Amino acid sequence: MSGELAVSPLAPADFPVLPAVDGVELSTHAAGIRYRGRTDLMLAVLAEGTTVAGTFTSSLCPSAPVEWCRAILSSGRARALVVNSGNANAFTGRTGDEAARLTAETMAGALGLDATEIYLASTGVIGENLPQDVLARELPVVPSNLAPSDPATWRAAADAIRTTDTFAKGAAATAAFDGVGATVVGIAKGSGMIAPDMATMLAFVFTDAAITPEALQQLTTASVRRSFNRITVDSDTSTSDTTLVFATGALDNDLISGPGDPGFAELGAALDAVTLELAHQIVRDGEGATKFVTIEVTGAEHDEAASTIALAIANSPLVKTALAASDANWGRVVMAVGKAGQRADRDRLSIWIGDEQCAAAGVVADGYSEERATAHLLGDEVQLRVDVGIGDGTATVWTCDLTHGYININAGYRS
Amino acid sequence: MSGELAVSPLAPADFPVLPAVDGVELSTHAAGIRYRGRTDLMLAVLAEGTTVAGTFTSSLCPSAPVEWCRAILSSGRARALVVNSGNANAFTGRTGDEAARLTAETMAGALGLDATEIYLASTGVIGENLPQDVLARELPVVPSNLAPSDPATWRAAADAIRTTDTFAKGAAATAAFDGVGATVVGIAKGSGMIAPDMATMLAFVFTDAAITPEALQQLTTASVRRSFNRITVDSDTSTSDTTLVFATGALDNDLISGPGDPGFAELGAALDAVTLELAHQIVRDGEGATKFVTIEVTGAEHDEAASTIALAIANSPLVKTALAASDANWGRVVMAVGKAGQRADRDRLSIWIGDEQCAAAGVVADGYSEERATAHLLGDEVQLRVDVGIGDGTATVWTCDLTHGYININAGYRS
Repeated sequence: MSGELAVSPLAPADFPVLPAVDGVELSTHAAGIRYRGRTDLMLAVLAEGTTVAGTFTSSLCPSAPVEWCRAILSSGRARALVVNSGNANAFTGRTGDEAARLTAETMAGALGLDATEIYLASTGVIGENLPQDVLARELPVVPSNLAPSDPATWRAAADAIRTTDTFAKGAAATAAFDGVGATVVGIAKGSGMIAPDMATMLAFVFTDAAITPEALQQLTTASVRRSFNRITVDSDTSTSDTTLVFATGALDNDLISGPGDPGFAELGAALDAVTLELAHQIVRDGEGATKFVTIEVTGAEHDEAASTIALAIANSPLVKTALAASDANWGRVVMAVGKAGQRADRDRLSIWIGDEQCAAAGVVADGYSEERATAHLLGDEVQLRVDVGIGDGTATVWTCDLTHGYININAGYRS
Repeated sequence: MSGELAVSPLAPADFPVLPAVDGVELSTHAAGIRYRGRTDLMLAVLAEGTTVAGTFTSSLCPSAPVEWCRAILSSGRARALVVNSGNANAFTGRTGDEAARLTAETMAGALGLDATEIYLASTGVIGENLPQDVLARELPVVPSNLAPSDPATWRAAADAIRTTDTFAKGAAATAAFDGVGATVVGIAKGSGMIAPDMATMLAFVFTDAAITPEALQQLTTASVRRSFNRITVDSDTSTSDTTLVFATGALDNDLISGPGDPGFAELGAALDAVTLELAHQIVRDGEGATKFVTIEVTGAEHDEAASTIALAIANSPLVKTALAASDANWGRVVMAVGKAGQRADRDRLSIWIGDEQCAAAGVVADGYSEERATAHLLGDEVQLRVDVGIGDGTATVWTCDLTHGYININAGYRS
């Protein structure tokens, strides 16, 4: 499907060269679940002892694979990840739960593992049953292609999980501590979408570091809060959003078990770098996006308030359409601050577009030049900054503009 | 400005013939505040003894006229209403407060009234100062045109408060009780918009009934909750949203002072009819709207939960673009229910498009026909119904679809 959409103008020039992560083997397969002529199954097999952490959609109507992962995550252990594209296995009731279990059990049988060590994610059409006959036939074939993770297999994995993403998404970082170097690699899909999918975001991150599940969850939760939870394309929340972080332990470092241990901070920083880069790539593939927009809020009552205000700006259709038009329409930013429901005072509000201050203390800034603000907006990397003027809370979020392309993709397009 | 936009395809055939309301005199004037060649000031002078109730934007950055009205509303008394279009007097700081005070004081001088009995509303561009010299010169002229309310003066008033509304909005109803007949007439503007305005909604309702301010506020609050607070075009909240209800008492009925009094329920019903009709007209003038959409939620935990779920559906860009495409994409409705944050259970959810049941108990409904659902969606009056299946809470909201027209208006257009 992805071939039908032009590559986003905001896409990175190339897919990155992602390094091997010891303890991770990858395979992809064209199972024909929905798509023809492309891969739609991705398998990662993880070394014995791999720990896992995860965060999932806040939707109260989550997909069957999300419920499966939630149920098995308490063990903190993982041996494999199976992802299919083309069908989200969402809103499929008990049949969907059965399909998830069948997937895990079939793959467990093929790999000689326990089903409860196998994590699942599905993305694609919702409300249609995953074809169990296809799964039963095709899943056992997938392990035959297993190969160590390397630039080529990472790229193949990133491609297999795409739906209508217009480019494959990947990122890597390293963490040096205690004389060792840990590798962190992530792949993701999102924002490009196949209707009636819901811009599902999936992100899978792998490291060779040895870390307890509890410490990994702590790093993951913090990292997701600063990355995937700080991006928005259209304010909608998928039934299937999933972030899973796997640590194979192949690095053989001293086990990281908490903030006091060497490597905790370094690994967290590397994880942050990977999740933030993946989050930015998802925004860059926002449906119809022509501008990558950074919104920084300072001076709010506290950080959560700053985040709520920043997201209110980022989700405002009026702000997003103004950005699409390179229209220095800062009145719409005032509106969004006002509707955010967080403490604000009209007479303390300051607003910048790029380096140009539009508003100061609640009125138009002295010397404000709409021409300079517009010049900044004409670029495809846009910065908005709001100072609320009442406290120390700060937050940064990333979004894209709202264009005819979004309408074309979402109103014109369902196979 | 309104002439630049084609009339909404959902507009009523004609502006209604609005009856006189005893105790209300009207005048309009072309002051040239921003627009040329059209009226932009509207004055209503109200009989001595007129009571007033109001509701205002929840924005924490409200316009100066909103703050003015809030400050004087505690008296419960009103003698005049002054509305200007073309400039919202929002985000104008102390200068804006001064302009509001100047408006009230100038009109008070011209009419021989107290400024604190004069209600104000402004709609149009924000962040620009209301030109005080123009106000000082033009406001005193407005009363010279005063005439009793009648179909022609109502129409003129409804026109003067338009910004980019593509049609003038008005509604009337009567309440019979205790051998008398009360008249309720309302005019409104909204949804059509002049950038960088924010689709400000203004509604002014007038009745000849005699009712205490407290009882009138009670009816107004309830009525707004069921009408203006149940519509959404794009989820954005104006700095200036204002509803004011004036009761002149010219009917000379026994004063209505609470729910136990004759006329309270009847007047409330007439007020509801007027506010609901005005609310629907605002949706019908939604920017780029091609479909009028009714969303009914039943079976929620309670009515507030039903309302939150219904608004989540109504505000979802993915739902709204599917509606624009007449795409029976009920998976997006599931998504919106899931993200609403209210109690829901995937396996109890049922969804209808028109009379066609798409989903039952969390899976595709037996015998669901996408053809029949699509046939319903191809019309310009669309019904969605969701039964959450867990309680007795119900709510109905109204919205429109999200089309290229919305992008054209909001991304392409600022004078």
